[in-house]
Amino acid sequence: MSKKKDGFVDHITSREEDFSQWYTDVILKADLVDYSPVRGFMVIKPYGYAIWENIQRELDDRFKATGHKNAYFPLLIPESLLKKEEEHVEGFAPEVAWVTQGGDEKLAERLVVRPTSETIICSMYAKWIQSYRDLPLLYNQWCNVVRWEKSTRPFLRTSEFLWQEGHTAHATKEEAQEETLKMLEVYREFAYNVLAMPVVTGQKTEKEKFAGALHTYTIEALMQDGRALQAGTSHNLAQHFAKVFDIQFLDRDSQLKYVWQTSWGVSTRLIGGLIMVHGDERGLVLPPKVAPTQVVIVPIAMHKEGVLEKANELYDRLKNVGIRVELDDRETQSPGWKFNEWELKGVPIRLEIGPRDIKNDQVVLVRRDNGEKEFIKIENLENDTVGTIDAIQSDLLQKALDMREDRTTVATNMEEFKEGVKRGFVKAMWCGSGECEDAIREESGATARCMPFEQEDISEKCICCGDKAEHMVYFSRAY
Amino acid sequence: MSKKKDGFVDHITSREEDFSQWYTDVILKADLVDYSPVRGFMVIKPYGYAIWENIQRELDDRFKATGHKNAYFPLLIPESLLKKEEEHVEGFAPEVAWVTQGGDEKLAERLVVRPTSETIICSMYAKWIQSYRDLPLLYNQWCNVVRWEKSTRPFLRTSEFLWQEGHTAHATKEEAQEETLKMLEVYREFAYNVLAMPVVTGQKTEKEKFAGALHTYTIEALMQDGRALQAGTSHNLAQHFAKVFDIQFLDRDSQLKYVWQTSWGVSTRLIGGLIMVHGDERGLVLPPKVAPTQVVIVPIAMHKEGVLEKANELYDRLKNVGIRVELDDRETQSPGWKFNEWELKGVPIRLEIGPRDIKNDQVVLVRRDNGEKEFIKIENLENDTVGTIDAIQSDLLQKALDMREDRTTVATNMEEFKEGVKRGFVKAMWCGSGECEDAIREESGATARCMPFEQEDISEKCICCGDKAEHMVYFSRAY
Repeated sequence: MSKKKDGFVDHITSREEDFSQWYTDVILKADLVDYSPVRGFMVIKPYGYAIWENIQRELDDRFKATGHKNAYFPLLIPESLLKKEEEHVEGFAPEVAWVTQGGDEKLAERLVVRPTSETIICSMYAKWIQSYRDLPLLYNQWCNVVRWEKSTRPFLRTSEFLWQEGHTAHATKEEAQEETLKMLEVYREFAYNVLAMPVVTGQKTEKEKFAGALHTYTIEALMQDGRALQAGTSHNLAQHFAKVFDIQFLDRDSQLKYVWQTSWGVSTRLIGGLIMVHGDERGLVLPPKVAPTQVVIVPIAMHKEGVLEKANELYDRLKNVGIRVELDDRETQSPGWKFNEWELKGVPIRLEIGPRDIKNDQVVLVRRDNGEKEFIKIENLENDTVGTIDAIQSDLLQKALDMREDRTTVATNMEEFKEGVKRGFVKAMWCGSGECEDAIREESGATARCMPFEQEDISEKCICCGDKAEHMVYFSRAY
Repeated sequence: MSKKKDGFVDHITSREEDFSQWYTDVILKADLVDYSPVRGFMVIKPYGYAIWENIQRELDDRFKATGHKNAYFPLLIPESLLKKEEEHVEGFAPEVAWVTQGGDEKLAERLVVRPTSETIICSMYAKWIQSYRDLPLLYNQWCNVVRWEKSTRPFLRTSEFLWQEGHTAHATKEEAQEETLKMLEVYREFAYNVLAMPVVTGQKTEKEKFAGALHTYTIEALMQDGRALQAGTSHNLAQHFAKVFDIQFLDRDSQLKYVWQTSWGVSTRLIGGLIMVHGDERGLVLPPKVAPTQVVIVPIAMHKEGVLEKANELYDRLKNVGIRVELDDRETQSPGWKFNEWELKGVPIRLEIGPRDIKNDQVVLVRRDNGEKEFIKIENLENDTVGTIDAIQSDLLQKALDMREDRTTVATNMEEFKEGVKRGFVKAMWCGSGECEDAIREESGATARCMPFEQEDISEKCICCGDKAEHMVYFSRAY
């Protein structure tokens, strides 16, 4: 921030003019990330990383509450391990980074920088799991992964990103399916209640599922430009990996059986989603639950007697009730400049306090999400602030729901479909064939985002071939 | 744990018989780590990772309290960046892993998997720092690093490890030195008060300092086998990196100046230190502040009426006061088996509760560190448990201090020196020459661990060459 020496926050491109440029302007000017000297790799700056820390804390609590434990597995995976599961290697081999030399020594076997950890983890599970008593095994890992991407955008698609990957093993098919859906529900609830980001939940088509999974389930969010973001996935791996990695257990009935597995993950991509769901012409708009700073106090006429003193008192009182608060007492900037800057950074609430306010025992509260201004009595500071924080959190969700509603259409023919895709989600019927999926993509640029759990009976015919429809699908362009 | 089907925890080699084997037995049997299919890379299992999470939380709070913020920088570093600082590349090039291919494409420039991040971070600081208003820049990163090691031991030396690395930039030489020592003090205080691991603080010799630093400061702990462990380092980088990465700022006096920098780090190696300082013949002994489980409740005659009920009540009461407590109500194992297992895992306090205890309104409390057993009144449960937790924490520190005292000798000639090195730390005078340092190492196997801040005047002559002594040094064999 201190670099903006001209006294004004730089111009942000408007969303309508160029949504993609708006996104880039926001992430750079709000100081979330920067480009690095390594193509496709980003630096997450402190303000962006603090959002990630809040996301991590919320998710980690949920993982632990559902019985999962964290562990850490090696970054590098031998080529032979990666190649064991056929579909998996086909999916990932084209996009991995290869380590071929360690120190002065050329490696006998190449190692990949993990793009995901199923293979290395399965090689350990084969050793750790012997009896039904060892099941279920419910582990999660917070780490970095690398996928060599040709075209990248900070948070949305980068060659390295931070994520969590859960990996579980179960005695029965039913338990694995239950776990897969349980973790999808954890993601859904988190997206709604923490990120204020409504998501559609459902199953991926064969073409879009994880390489090596039996079924992939997804949470899909709609951005303000009408494109979808796959925000998290949960995979039922069935016994695909168990069979090639030989993960067997002696069951209660004294039979050796293969385990049933799941994996699930979300990443720093969620931050990109947050920005594109809630941001506006003034920059970031952060839901209070993940905002690094929930309230900023800006003193007015700071040098007048008692102002800074009172501002500090407000700061202490809010801090004491657990609110993440900052006092901006920089002498180098005007209040107006500070207002702009904190708006750009998406801080949910601004409190202004000046000599007149003090005289009236009040403080000015300004909401970032809708710009509303109100006077609150200083004696009600904590209650009113907490109340407004809650209101902003739920209003943001409602606004995002309305936006999605507004951008979701139903199509029964390709004309309607193509029109709808320009706006956002299109609900349409599909016969289930890969050919139609391809044809739809080619014609409209839209992909099948998911077959939602809540199926609607729009028509009896596939929108593409006219044959008997099997599924209602959410289609859209996607990040 | 569930794999020990014979009903007994396996035998642990005694420390006297073979300390190194004892260490291996403990880390594997207490389920902290496992070996992976990649040579030199370890898997940190949930119980080991939970210790790391506690270490992280304690340190992260301290870093934030001293004004530092977390960020994240790329895993891969272009060869040309690594090579910019001459001493740095000489120190690290022999032990880095090289990425030479991304996807199908052979890279035009090789990338190293970060062994430490000075170079990539400096390349960003050059961009971010322009004015004195941008200083100090106080960032930290929690991440994995890779150093290609020929001979590895879990936690102590592995080709990949987890750590934090602080990187700061300052306007003046004095501020950088102050920061270097401030963070060393954070490490020292943390080692004493959280890990109960007394450390000697001081400066590294030229030969032992960080590649690229002006001065390196260290905390050095003594293990029970008389070898030292470098447990954390803090480097004053002066302007070495600033000059090659061109990190300049416009100062208040309108002059362009190079910044002054520091870096500092600790790693999962601390877990190895914990084990070797506190462990005993029964396995791990964990200081309560980092123990994943601080108290385990083992019900006796679990099926007698009211026992499990009472055990659950104790569990709830301890949980309510913030104690990390577990109730071991497994039906497949006997109390005796459970006692052994929780001792092996180093849980500080065991509570036993059976029908007779319930009748007497008491519970049996057993301390892991000294085996002492006492009856406490159930009405005093919370107070007595918290009191014992505090007592264990401070007794462990005292015990480690006594051990170190006992293993620290003073030498004024090489005979005494060599005898002392067999026991542990040797304090001796040194002329400051690299030749003497080499000669001492060759003759005794000991290296200069540090020149302590608390210098003592043992003699006027260098223990090796007999010339005028410059420094009192702690020498010892080391991990």
